[in-house]
Amino acid sequence: MVTAPSPSHAPFNVVDLIRMKCDKGELSDAQIDWLFDAYMADEIADEQMAAFAMAVRFCGLSRRELDRWTRAMINSGERLDFSGLSKPTVDKHSTGGVGDKITLPLVPLVAACGVAVPQLSGRGLGHTGGTLDKLESIPGWRASLTNEEMMRQLEEIGAVICAPGAGLVPADKKLYALRDVTGTVESIPLIASSIMSKKIAEGASALVLDVKVGSGAFMKTSDSARELARTMVELGQAEGVTTVALLTDMSIPLGLTAGNALEVMESIEVLAGGGPPDVVELTVALAREMLVAVGQDDHDPAELLASGAAMDVWRSMIKAQGGDPDAKLPVARETHVIITEQGGVLQSLDALAVGEAAWRLGAGRARKEHAVQPAAGVQLHAKPGARVRAGQPLMTLHTDTPERFEMAREALAGAYSIGDAAPPERPLILDRID
Amino acid sequence: MVTAPSPSHAPFNVVDLIRMKCDKGELSDAQIDWLFDAYMADEIADEQMAAFAMAVRFCGLSRRELDRWTRAMINSGERLDFSGLSKPTVDKHSTGGVGDKITLPLVPLVAACGVAVPQLSGRGLGHTGGTLDKLESIPGWRASLTNEEMMRQLEEIGAVICAPGAGLVPADKKLYALRDVTGTVESIPLIASSIMSKKIAEGASALVLDVKVGSGAFMKTSDSARELARTMVELGQAEGVTTVALLTDMSIPLGLTAGNALEVMESIEVLAGGGPPDVVELTVALAREMLVAVGQDDHDPAELLASGAAMDVWRSMIKAQGGDPDAKLPVARETHVIITEQGGVLQSLDALAVGEAAWRLGAGRARKEHAVQPAAGVQLHAKPGARVRAGQPLMTLHTDTPERFEMAREALAGAYSIGDAAPPERPLILDRID
Repeated sequence: MVTAPSPSHAPFNVVDLIRMKCDKGELSDAQIDWLFDAYMADEIADEQMAAFAMAVRFCGLSRRELDRWTRAMINSGERLDFSGLSKPTVDKHSTGGVGDKITLPLVPLVAACGVAVPQLSGRGLGHTGGTLDKLESIPGWRASLTNEEMMRQLEEIGAVICAPGAGLVPADKKLYALRDVTGTVESIPLIASSIMSKKIAEGASALVLDVKVGSGAFMKTSDSARELARTMVELGQAEGVTTVALLTDMSIPLGLTAGNALEVMESIEVLAGGGPPDVVELTVALAREMLVAVGQDDHDPAELLASGAAMDVWRSMIKAQGGDPDAKLPVARETHVIITEQGGVLQSLDALAVGEAAWRLGAGRARKEHAVQPAAGVQLHAKPGARVRAGQPLMTLHTDTPERFEMAREALAGAYSIGDAAPPERPLILDRID
Repeated sequence: MVTAPSPSHAPFNVVDLIRMKCDKGELSDAQIDWLFDAYMADEIADEQMAAFAMAVRFCGLSRRELDRWTRAMINSGERLDFSGLSKPTVDKHSTGGVGDKITLPLVPLVAACGVAVPQLSGRGLGHTGGTLDKLESIPGWRASLTNEEMMRQLEEIGAVICAPGAGLVPADKKLYALRDVTGTVESIPLIASSIMSKKIAEGASALVLDVKVGSGAFMKTSDSARELARTMVELGQAEGVTTVALLTDMSIPLGLTAGNALEVMESIEVLAGGGPPDVVELTVALAREMLVAVGQDDHDPAELLASGAAMDVWRSMIKAQGGDPDAKLPVARETHVIITEQGGVLQSLDALAVGEAAWRLGAGRARKEHAVQPAAGVQLHAKPGARVRAGQPLMTLHTDTPERFEMAREALAGAYSIGDAAPPERPLILDRID
């Protein structure tokens, strides 16, 4: 068919670009820039961008296309500039997992080492929870800061965890909302560019990625997680941001809690020098990577955690954003204990099932506009490798709405197994990619 | 990610169905029925259906899925019923080509053999032209008939060429408009179901398909054309419609004209017993297939063309729809003759280039809402195999807007070649699939 002349003197025809991508062609830089400009100006309709995203799901983006795609997304909005700060900046991003509260102790810990951490976080959708939802269980704490407030807090305290402003990568907001309803989330170049466009626009000079792999993670296999990690590291380096990724296990939950206030309590235990060993291990490992990435590795994060220095920063950070670090955290109205029926060694505990149970108890939301229950979630009393006796509590479910217990129990059916032998050791940190 | 519960008690979640198709899964009958019901009720958004269509472009539809998909499209609207007529009904569909005016002599010819032909046609978009555009160059002729007018004309004259009513396969109207702007036209199952849903809903008991292959056709290779033909024949048979397909050459234009009034004039020559041999050959071959398909092959279509019987039906058919069969057809205000620069034997004449030239001269439209120039088009003075002298006219361009000549000449650059030897014979009818 002859292609109709484009309306309004557009330099390209979006249908031609969609067809080109379907035929595994490569778009030019000018075509990619135009695609985002026209999409943001509503000259390309949602159905056209959805078709393009689906073509990318099947045909991918080349290295050059992906660099430009990410650049075009960044250019759709503002880019923060921390060059006026007196200290280096480093950020961290996790691809999301069950019980992943690492950001909470990690940000004050790195700040305690003299490095500024401007951590812009999101809310949870689905089973993985969101850092802002967790912190909002602290009475008074607010997620929104102006750029000026953020800059001042970074200079004075070094630690900020807040919501991104609306001006940051609006193309990602629009495109992600579209991908979410069109089955086009599952694409490594689209995932990588979505994450990295935001992290690069946030302006930190270095970035450490925690790419999760396993049932509770978005990436179920280490091959796909490694490909995502490598893609993101390359994107960061192409934009001049020192980037390194750790591949970490998410086949079992991190720590002993999944749920907003429950995870804040566990984070405070870690900041107080205690807490579950896996949470401590990953917090310290990521802190070391972040410090190395900005050449400030003369502090030992494990010591600063034990000494209470990180806890001091935490308290200042929470107060600076209106929160009361001494306030009592919300407690669920109802709890329900799950008991083991046989004794032995806990063999496995499926991260996805625990995440889904926490979500069903009210810790997560099914739609963006829903509220979460701050106190809902799952508390674990044993992790794989632990010896349990018949009749011993294995986990406690927390919710304000007890009719949800049944749905949560269903999610947990078959989620754990008990045997005689010790299960194989599983390292928490699987690989490092730089 | 956990899938959010579906809103409004929908039995399925469209994002799940899109993902299933991306993973090469098969939708159930109930899922396909729901997909169309929900799309027609605007519960599935255009961006979701575009993503689904793109997934089908990459992953296809199984035989069972495609049967149900086509059935679901038919069920979105009314289905005509010709069982009350005193004669059998048969229809024909061409996938479209340059100079393809076959419907014009064919419909009255088959009707002259005592078989009713309810031909619902379309308008042209792009380089191939549309049957209704051609007939509308006849003063007074109107494309729209009520179902009652159509039925009466079929009973009395046997021949109808008209626009489909709005009630016929509304799902195809909506889906085709979406595919047209989202790069999802190029999918054999989607093309086949679009064509066959309309043809089956039109209610003829038998159907002959003319599947074009070559530069001027939608299918450029005989493999893809054969696959489309086989898919459509199977779909027709699954719905109880006797269906047969001819694969025919569209690497050069059919006949000596491309353009609306020009093609009507050539069709009248054929009905008068003359006309270009290829147009006569294909008209007679398709008529024979149509008559065999309804078991009425005791007439020889070639004789009824020569005898003037088909011309009598043509005149009645045009008059019944308000047209004057004796009226002078529109003539272009300006013509421009293209001369050969060297003598020899015409080797080739590219169908797509001629179609694009006719379109640029005003015979076709770039957008649905545009009007066509009834008199615009290309008239050929030689076809491949003909001997030409230097300085001899090769073709005449017709338009009301002479500034278009230059664009048409550009489309024709390199479209033909002249050599010494006779070009290889190319059969017009390449294959038959039943």
